[in-house]
Amino acid sequence: MRFTKMHGLGNDYVYVNCYEEKVEEPERMAKQLCDRHFGIGADGLILICPSEHADCRMEMYNADGSRGAMCGNGIRCVAKYVYEAGLVERERMKVETDSGIRRLVCRVREGRVYLVDVDMGVPALFPRESLSAGGSSFSFTPVDMGNPHAVLFYSDVDSVDVEQIGPAIENHKRFPGRTNVEFAQITDAQNIKLRVWERGSGETMACGTGACAACAAAMAMGLVKRKVTVRLPGGKLDITWSKADGPMILTGPAKKVFCGSLCP
Amino acid sequence: MRFTKMHGLGNDYVYVNCYEEKVEEPERMAKQLCDRHFGIGADGLILICPSEHADCRMEMYNADGSRGAMCGNGIRCVAKYVYEAGLVERERMKVETDSGIRRLVCRVREGRVYLVDVDMGVPALFPRESLSAGGSSFSFTPVDMGNPHAVLFYSDVDSVDVEQIGPAIENHKRFPGRTNVEFAQITDAQNIKLRVWERGSGETMACGTGACAACAAAMAMGLVKRKVTVRLPGGKLDITWSKADGPMILTGPAKKVFCGSLCP
Repeated sequence: MRFTKMHGLGNDYVYVNCYEEKVEEPERMAKQLCDRHFGIGADGLILICPSEHADCRMEMYNADGSRGAMCGNGIRCVAKYVYEAGLVERERMKVETDSGIRRLVCRVREGRVYLVDVDMGVPALFPRESLSAGGSSFSFTPVDMGNPHAVLFYSDVDSVDVEQIGPAIENHKRFPGRTNVEFAQITDAQNIKLRVWERGSGETMACGTGACAACAAAMAMGLVKRKVTVRLPGGKLDITWSKADGPMILTGPAKKVFCGSLCP
Repeated sequence: MRFTKMHGLGNDYVYVNCYEEKVEEPERMAKQLCDRHFGIGADGLILICPSEHADCRMEMYNADGSRGAMCGNGIRCVAKYVYEAGLVERERMKVETDSGIRRLVCRVREGRVYLVDVDMGVPALFPRESLSAGGSSFSFTPVDMGNPHAVLFYSDVDSVDVEQIGPAIENHKRFPGRTNVEFAQITDAQNIKLRVWERGSGETMACGTGACAACAAAMAMGLVKRKVTVRLPGGKLDITWSKADGPMILTGPAKKVFCGSLCP
């Protein structure tokens, strides 16, 4: 089986071109391939497939073999792959995911995609609320980006004990289906520094929906402008939200690291 | 650059055939390639090179870019690679390392190497001693396998707090150059269960010299026979030490996972 290893801000997946390859038992394969010592090593497996409803389709599996719906970092790499492989011959494209069809725009230089804009949909914002966990009180903004988020603001995110607070909020009874947790620091009106505790994964290097959720909350509170750069441990993303009832556009890099084939 | 990803009991390296490829600045490359999210991901980089003194030479770099001398799991994969690539056409071979020339024997079935015997040299055993660390007293056997080891025995290694005791002994003043620490459980006269705290790396899935050190200590104390199977978290190794003044032979698997080439 041939594959390509790509990442968006260090969020790395094994990509298989299913226009050419066939992956039997993808759940089992994802677990095996994603193992970082015995396999290829990745956060997940993404199959790139033909679509009847869009330019192509991504089918995503997490490292534990479970099915994933969408990933902001992963879908940028899908766009880069299909454009550079000639599977989709336009910069503007639609990619079918398990959480609907997403529109993307590839930014191309000398035939190579270096940045991708992703339409992340319209954020659903809720009023700020508070909860108690581990003897402390936390104020947060609930945001729905297709998946649930709780956005907290801090003056210095480097000093936050994310390993402690993250799981306490993720698993709080307020969130029966658990939640992602964002720890955001407003650097200035156009910059946010962010750490994300991902539901089921712990702290990660970059989370696209988490970056959108943090921006949506900060923009709604008037803390930042409508175009913001978000700095995550894995790198930076640009987020634009022109109108409150319109879609949020996330712009970020996509990188190919290596191509390979499994040994028999 | 083309490469092959291989592992011995989950101890994984990127192997480059330097009969064909040239690696500039290997220290920098090792750091970049070994990153598990932005690179290929591995415990280190091993260059397979021609030798004037042996059948081939391995040049090893750790994930942090530092130079490594020898690795019992890594050298088995070198033997498998050169045999299967036809670079060395005999099962019995000599591999030059930074800690001398090692003799290996490939066990072959239908052209494929499935196990490799490695001559690990003659263990240097020292009398048991005790030290205090963190308010507790520990008895251990010092063993030199080219690198330093302290072997401790427990009735149940699963319940040992390796994360606590490992670094306390590693960095104890008794070991000015630090030490590897072995936590060994004698299952029966032919089986040892082992966890290893590696100097500078923490607990690992498998350590060849650590397995040898634990067996040397247990054999010298008469706790086990001269041929023992060692079960590590990453899998098992067989160790034979026929004569106290002769070499220890370690037998273990070597696996190829995938071949690849870096994207430009």
